[in-house]
Amino acid sequence: MKIAYLGPNGSFTHSAALKVFPQEDLQPYANITEVIKAYENQEADFAIVPIENSIEGSVHETLDYLFHQAEIKAVAEIIQPIKQQLMATASDKKIEKIFSHPQALAQGEQYIRQYYPQAKAEIMASTAYAARFVTEHPEQPYAAIAPHAAAEEYGLTIIAQDIQEIDENFTRFWVLGHQKAQISLQAEASKVSLALTLPDNLPGALYKALSVFAWRGINLTKTESRPLKTVLGEYFFIIDLENRSEKLLDFSLEELLTLRINFKVLGEYDVYRI
Amino acid sequence: MKIAYLGPNGSFTHSAALKVFPQEDLQPYANITEVIKAYENQEADFAIVPIENSIEGSVHETLDYLFHQAEIKAVAEIIQPIKQQLMATASDKKIEKIFSHPQALAQGEQYIRQYYPQAKAEIMASTAYAARFVTEHPEQPYAAIAPHAAAEEYGLTIIAQDIQEIDENFTRFWVLGHQKAQISLQAEASKVSLALTLPDNLPGALYKALSVFAWRGINLTKTESRPLKTVLGEYFFIIDLENRSEKLLDFSLEELLTLRINFKVLGEYDVYRI
Repeated sequence: MKIAYLGPNGSFTHSAALKVFPQEDLQPYANITEVIKAYENQEADFAIVPIENSIEGSVHETLDYLFHQAEIKAVAEIIQPIKQQLMATASDKKIEKIFSHPQALAQGEQYIRQYYPQAKAEIMASTAYAARFVTEHPEQPYAAIAPHAAAEEYGLTIIAQDIQEIDENFTRFWVLGHQKAQISLQAEASKVSLALTLPDNLPGALYKALSVFAWRGINLTKTESRPLKTVLGEYFFIIDLENRSEKLLDFSLEELLTLRINFKVLGEYDVYRI
Repeated sequence: MKIAYLGPNGSFTHSAALKVFPQEDLQPYANITEVIKAYENQEADFAIVPIENSIEGSVHETLDYLFHQAEIKAVAEIIQPIKQQLMATASDKKIEKIFSHPQALAQGEQYIRQYYPQAKAEIMASTAYAARFVTEHPEQPYAAIAPHAAAEEYGLTIIAQDIQEIDENFTRFWVLGHQKAQISLQAEASKVSLALTLPDNLPGALYKALSVFAWRGINLTKTESRPLKTVLGEYFFIIDLENRSEKLLDFSLEELLTLRINFKVLGEYDVYRI
């Protein structure tokens, strides 16, 4: 089975993919759109992309593509702790430049300021690209902030472990597909994610949409608005719901339509923590 | 009077600042945090920062800083149309690389693919930095995508006008301060922005918070969730409300507190379109 994921090798998505599909053929793609397109072009049976980080918030590229363009649903959710490592080609290396993704640089800022005050931070498109770049320039005084898997992938030495500032750093990944993924882990919850578009001429439309779930006791675990990209001030709303009763959920969705509130199901999935 | 704004000279924030404070001493700062800090350190009487774009969504750096760290409020909102220009040191220039902010590159992608299919897109931290970089390398086959003001600021020639794909592209800017700004434009609305934090042990808390406004007929123009940066799945909620009656609004805020829903007022402001 082929699994498309957000690469390159050694990315956080790669480590999530390895834990969930250890036996399968994992294929990296350069960006989120290409991962999803690989699935749409039938180059892969499932696609794995990040959807939200506990510090940085939602990954808009994923949400916007799924809402505006894709006909593919989340069939599993993976929650992975994010730990950042400082790595270089040798442990006794002089470090003058530290490469990483802006979020990882921000997370490691305190550590770097304390132990490498002379080092300059340099932005790269991803943590794994930063690691690869450092490997490709062994003669330079370079280091990268990247996941553990990137050090293994590119043969780098970890010179400082778990340098991220906030310990509670997790990323949610979605496994996208049309059929349920066979995952041999214990699910901790079952959820449904919807994208709502509200009619202009329904006052208090968001409030009414939430009422449909609230009075049935269906828990919202997240709501988020994203611009519709038409007019400033028009949004679609992503809501994540706990799925404890299919029947109650079906009734809610019917009631939404009766209120003329349209929705797209972005996913129906079990949640796995790794 | 000193006004701090998100620079450099020639940025979209700069053009908004020029229209609203044409007579004042405008001071550019390198990033949003530094703009707000300049105000906090009393280097400026007001600070101007972007808050939301109609295509890209909210500017998280602004929202997060105002919620987590700042004791400064929005006292005016400026809505500005965003139009992107392609510019170079001369109009007959051969173009091999086009520099800009990722959002501007995305907005100009169709135009570039059609008219400069051989050109390589290169990411810069802002449109105005891209324009300055092109000016600093007049011998190179470079162009930038940037606002009109950047061409004037850095003496570049506009070689293609209004290349952005979606015409409905607007950015909201906030003027931050402690006193009302004197702006000689006609206000089109009056709004209040709140950041809500919901108690863990109040089921349907967001629904209840929205109820407070919905039954009083107070319109929500926006809701958005941002991670609290503590645990995955905990958020604060930003809501923008139309302010048509101070009294009704005061009652709502009292009721929020009675429900143990905490809020921070991010701004109370008139809205100006330029």
